[in-house]
Amino acid sequence: MNKINLAEKFTQFSAHWSPKIIAELNGQHVKLGRIKGEFVWHRHEHEDELFLVVKGSFRMEFRDRHVDLHEGELLVVPRGVEHRPVAENECCIMMFEPASTLNTGNAGGPRTVAKPDWI
Amino acid sequence: MNKINLAEKFTQFSAHWSPKIIAELNGQHVKLGRIKGEFVWHRHEHEDELFLVVKGSFRMEFRDRHVDLHEGELLVVPRGVEHRPVAENECCIMMFEPASTLNTGNAGGPRTVAKPDWI
Repeated sequence: MNKINLAEKFTQFSAHWSPKIIAELNGQHVKLGRIKGEFVWHRHEHEDELFLVVKGSFRMEFRDRHVDLHEGELLVVPRGVEHRPVAENECCIMMFEPASTLNTGNAGGPRTVAKPDWI
Repeated sequence: MNKINLAEKFTQFSAHWSPKIIAELNGQHVKLGRIKGEFVWHRHEHEDELFLVVKGSFRMEFRDRHVDLHEGELLVVPRGVEHRPVAENECCIMMFEPASTLNTGNAGGPRTVAKPDWI
């Protein structure tokens, strides 16, 4: 039951699109991610996902629209909705989602992180 | 599926110890709170709670220790653990917890907010 300092945790990794787990509660994981560039289009059949921008900004693309997110802004992507995060410049995000959630959802492929590390 | 700006949401209420719901996902609520002074000692039998400091600082007291939390720091309080948040100066926090969670847990009493408002 120790506190977690987000800025300190972000110093512990530098890879993009490689989420790290920092906390678990009620079957949910809190994850940090550094993102840059375009991710893969995907959806999660059974999991809603929350994205909070800790530093920087990124765009969440949907098939019919997009949402630009800046520091201090969050977005919930409901289960079943195809999405693709895109960051022109590196962006630091925090995610809340069920512990079962895979980063690439239904898409799979080489960018899947099957078992994210705890930091 | 609109983005939520935390700073803007905090302008929508001023009462202390009156959590507001800003998002729901996977049976969990994301809540904002303004806290100042001492809350009541309580525990949650079935819910873990996450506290993230958005602005300011506060102290989470436990029966045998305490944790001082500052902006950008978070703490998970596991179910069953008695705790009491105390803020010398006003502090803005974000909470992540099951939708069933009552602010006063097992303690009940006049500071219970049975049905927090959505903002």
